[in-house]
Amino acid sequence: MKVIVIGGNGTIGRAVVEELGQRHDIVSVGQSSGELRVDMTRPESVQQLFRKTGPVDAVVVAAGKLHFGALAELTAEQLAVGLQDKLMGQVNIALAAQHHLRDGGSITLTSGIVSDEPIRFGVNATMVNAAVDGFVRAAAIELSRGLRINAVSPNVLVESMPAYGPYFLGFEPVTAARTAKAYSRSVDGLQTGQVYRVW
Amino acid sequence: MKVIVIGGNGTIGRAVVEELGQRHDIVSVGQSSGELRVDMTRPESVQQLFRKTGPVDAVVVAAGKLHFGALAELTAEQLAVGLQDKLMGQVNIALAAQHHLRDGGSITLTSGIVSDEPIRFGVNATMVNAAVDGFVRAAAIELSRGLRINAVSPNVLVESMPAYGPYFLGFEPVTAARTAKAYSRSVDGLQTGQVYRVW
Repeated sequence: MKVIVIGGNGTIGRAVVEELGQRHDIVSVGQSSGELRVDMTRPESVQQLFRKTGPVDAVVVAAGKLHFGALAELTAEQLAVGLQDKLMGQVNIALAAQHHLRDGGSITLTSGIVSDEPIRFGVNATMVNAAVDGFVRAAAIELSRGLRINAVSPNVLVESMPAYGPYFLGFEPVTAARTAKAYSRSVDGLQTGQVYRVW
Repeated sequence: MKVIVIGGNGTIGRAVVEELGQRHDIVSVGQSSGELRVDMTRPESVQQLFRKTGPVDAVVVAAGKLHFGALAELTAEQLAVGLQDKLMGQVNIALAAQHHLRDGGSITLTSGIVSDEPIRFGVNATMVNAAVDGFVRAAAIELSRGLRINAVSPNVLVESMPAYGPYFLGFEPVTAARTAKAYSRSVDGLQTGQVYRVW
C-alpha cells in the first residue's frame, strides 16, 4: 500500500513510519521537513499535496498544535489555535483525502487521552480532541467506496514527558512504538468510525 | 436566582424560560429579540451583555447555528459555521460568564444527540456538539468558587420536526418542555461536568 504520513517527522510520526514501513511504501510529509510539504491549515496547500502524491491507499495524520492555559484567562484567540490547527488541519486533510484515496482506503487521525480525561490547562485539548473523535464518528458513516476513517487517541508519550510531563502527573505514559500499533490497526484492519484509545 | 437565558426566544429557550421562570428571575437574551441582545460570536458583544446584566446566578445558552451537508462536498468554510457559532459562541459566553457569576453559579450549554449518534449530512453537528460536550468536561474541573458547568444534549425536538424531521428519520423526538427539565437539573442541581442526554 502507498501510505502518506503527515507529521512523519514528529514523535508519533517517526514511530508510525517505522511500524508501517515494514510492509508499505511510505511518503513522509511535514510542514517544514519530509519528502513532501504541507500546511494542513490551508485547503489549497492540502490540494497541492494530493496532486503531488497521486492516488494513495492510506492517509495518516499525526500532527496538530494546541494551546495549553488556565480557563480563567482563556481567550477565543487561544482556543482558535487548536481549532484551526489540530482540528481543522486534520479535517482539511480528511476532506481532501476522500477524493484521492483508492477504493477501500483509510484515513487515520490523531486525538488524545485528554478528549476523555480532562487535565488542568487542557480545555483547548479536550474540546479539539473530542471534536476530532466526533468528526471521525460522523465522517465514517458518510464515506463512500469502502473508505474508512478512524482516530488514535494516545496517552501522554514516554518520549514527550520532558515537555508535557508536568501536565500529566499520575498518567501512565505509553511509548510511541506502542502507539504506532494503533495506527496499524486502523490502516491494516477493516474497522471504521473507531477511536483507538492507547492507554 | 437571576438566570440569563441566551436564545430565550428559540424553541428550547422559550420552554426553558417557562420552566425556570416558575421559580427564578429570568433575563431573556437573543441576537435580534429579547430584553437584551448579544452576538455571542463576538467576545466584545458578550462582555457588553454581562456589563448590562451585572452579577448573575445562572447562565443558560440555547442557541447556535450548524451547517448540514454531504461529507463529499463539505468545505472548511461550511464547517466554520458551527465552529464559530454554536461552539465558539457558547464558549465565549462561558469564558465571560465565569467572571460574572456569583459563587456557586452555573453555566448550561447546549449540544445535541448527533454528538453521540451521527446522521447523514451531520458532520458539522457531530464535531461541534462533541466539542461542546468536551469543553464542558474540561472547564468543569478548572472552574473556581464552586461554579458549575453542564451541557444538555437533546434529541430532535417534536417542535422542530417540520424543519429537521427528514434528517432524523427513526429518531424518537422529545418535546421542548421535557428538554427544559434537563436545564433545570443543571441550574437547580449541584452536578458539574455532566452531559444531560434527553432521549
